[in-house]
Amino acid sequence: MSSSRISKLSVALKTSGVDSLALNAGPSLVYMTGLHFHLSERPVVTLFTAGNDPVIVMPELEMLKVSGLPYGIKPFPYGDNPADWEGVFRKAVKSLNLDGKRIGVEPQQMRLLEFRHLTSVAPKAEFPDASEVVSNLRIRKDAEEITAMRKAVKVAQSALEATIPLIKIGMTEKELAAELVVNLLQCGSQSDMPFAPIVSGGPNSANPHAIPSDRKLCAGDLLVVDWGAAVDGYISDLTRTFAVGEPDAEFRKIHQIVQEANAAGRAAGKPGVPCANVDSAARTVIEKSGYGKYFTHRTGHGIGMESHEEPYMRSGNMQLLEEGMTYTVEPGIYLPERNGVRIEDNMLVTANGVESLSDMPRELRAVG
Amino acid sequence: MSSSRISKLSVALKTSGVDSLALNAGPSLVYMTGLHFHLSERPVVTLFTAGNDPVIVMPELEMLKVSGLPYGIKPFPYGDNPADWEGVFRKAVKSLNLDGKRIGVEPQQMRLLEFRHLTSVAPKAEFPDASEVVSNLRIRKDAEEITAMRKAVKVAQSALEATIPLIKIGMTEKELAAELVVNLLQCGSQSDMPFAPIVSGGPNSANPHAIPSDRKLCAGDLLVVDWGAAVDGYISDLTRTFAVGEPDAEFRKIHQIVQEANAAGRAAGKPGVPCANVDSAARTVIEKSGYGKYFTHRTGHGIGMESHEEPYMRSGNMQLLEEGMTYTVEPGIYLPERNGVRIEDNMLVTANGVESLSDMPRELRAVG
Repeated sequence: MSSSRISKLSVALKTSGVDSLALNAGPSLVYMTGLHFHLSERPVVTLFTAGNDPVIVMPELEMLKVSGLPYGIKPFPYGDNPADWEGVFRKAVKSLNLDGKRIGVEPQQMRLLEFRHLTSVAPKAEFPDASEVVSNLRIRKDAEEITAMRKAVKVAQSALEATIPLIKIGMTEKELAAELVVNLLQCGSQSDMPFAPIVSGGPNSANPHAIPSDRKLCAGDLLVVDWGAAVDGYISDLTRTFAVGEPDAEFRKIHQIVQEANAAGRAAGKPGVPCANVDSAARTVIEKSGYGKYFTHRTGHGIGMESHEEPYMRSGNMQLLEEGMTYTVEPGIYLPERNGVRIEDNMLVTANGVESLSDMPRELRAVG
Repeated sequence: MSSSRISKLSVALKTSGVDSLALNAGPSLVYMTGLHFHLSERPVVTLFTAGNDPVIVMPELEMLKVSGLPYGIKPFPYGDNPADWEGVFRKAVKSLNLDGKRIGVEPQQMRLLEFRHLTSVAPKAEFPDASEVVSNLRIRKDAEEITAMRKAVKVAQSALEATIPLIKIGMTEKELAAELVVNLLQCGSQSDMPFAPIVSGGPNSANPHAIPSDRKLCAGDLLVVDWGAAVDGYISDLTRTFAVGEPDAEFRKIHQIVQEANAAGRAAGKPGVPCANVDSAARTVIEKSGYGKYFTHRTGHGIGMESHEEPYMRSGNMQLLEEGMTYTVEPGIYLPERNGVRIEDNMLVTANGVESLSDMPRELRAVG
């Protein structure tokens, strides 16, 4: 798998305007090479060029990771004394003769820890943003990737269904989040999950990126659960909103509006449609209802190995959807200091249209 | 808590040689402000200066996070169109008049995503490594932090004890890792854990940073479990090695050597001792046994909010231990393609000596 991806990258590099691509630890490195490293105090950089085996600067103690790989890679290992690291970077960059060349980077992933070693040993090189070189490869999922994503959606849905009966008034957000994580693992998620679930009730649900707190669920709360699973390195990212006890009429109303916006956003995608259209389809429903100013974020984002990746469903993004792209549709209405609603599904662009990988009921369900 | 830390940082900045400190999302930002952000495609930077409220560039949809804080902070929010972000960075940097000044950064944390916005709007500024300004504050834990770390050790130990009876020959590393994670959560770990447990058997245990695989546990394996919990934002990071069935005599022997090295490393710490001494105390035991070349990493690292932080227990590090510092002692012997052993404890430097926060039995226990 990775050896054919490295070949594809070599081809892409030839027309990319960069001589090399430098990746540090993270999803793009995993995608290209299958190599997992932590972002730690020890720098790790892999340098890809057209026509040579990739070169990797890495800690000596991780050398077993690069033995027996199904493709060639040239390791430049270093020991635990940081004073020695720059010399190792120098040898690696020199082996590819990269000083003075254009070494592409991913600004969203590359840290100054790695970058400053690179600029120091290749002072005449340029380091343009080459994120698109990799994201253009990653953005269309192949059959194996889609299979993993289908599983990740299924695991997430099963885990939440198993958790719903446990929800009780008086339970804290943190307690509910812990139950959900246990169920995610028991239903088959990897233990390194894409993100910690958001479980937010009442006023906290009006914060789209809330962190589970010690607040107890109360009758009358809306309860937002934004959760996902990871299977074979691919993730799901879903949201459903519940009513704790009997919700106020306005909260029922905003849930209904968001449900309609979600349906409109889901229906809007197909090959050839700009991402902006998915956003406007969902946004128009909310704006027409008069709650437009309470939908404070874009309608969605790409998903795959990462919980946020290309393509982004936002106003102004004229990127066209293509078969194999996967993204979220997740409109919301957030009434500050009161309650919030979000409904999120995971979409796959098919040859002629779009499919929702997630199918858990979206209606406002009473819990507690 | 955070307002007194911001005051301490202001004092530290005056003698640090930098005019400002720029932090992006991550543990140092949480330490200083209590603010949690994801490292995502949306840049977040907080700029600290002596004598002004901190300034934060951040997504508009996260504004609720900065309302009602117990200290002053000036937000510069932006919307979802990346084209607008640089203008917001410009206003933020201008509000503190930072162009041409020395803006300190943490290279291990700062990404090019944030850094390039900063260099673009402050082209005359310098960006020196100011990691020490924050790490000097973070490195000595206060009573509240130590309490959290004690809890994190206790949760981790209880979780592994609950998992040991489930270990069976024929079970995969991944299955065992999932059981352990479930127990960590049920014993009280936060759902966003410090790191995914390492569960590695037989030849995989010879890779210090192995990732749980589909390999099944076999009689004769050594089984390395490197795991931790998180409580109130602080972590534990422990390792124990088990024998699956009846181990080979050499594997018993290397376990015994590592156990003695661990004891020597634990005993070596106290205020005023260089970190290098902790490393050499453990390393000497292994070298004398003739297995020196199979101990391929430093003896330990600091722990706290992060699973790897200052101070590092490595050869050549003459930094002196001080009361309140916390670190791991984790010697190992790794016999390539055969088996590995590591035994890791979490240490706290006290007024007159050192205390092991972890006390789970270190002897080679048979499982399966």
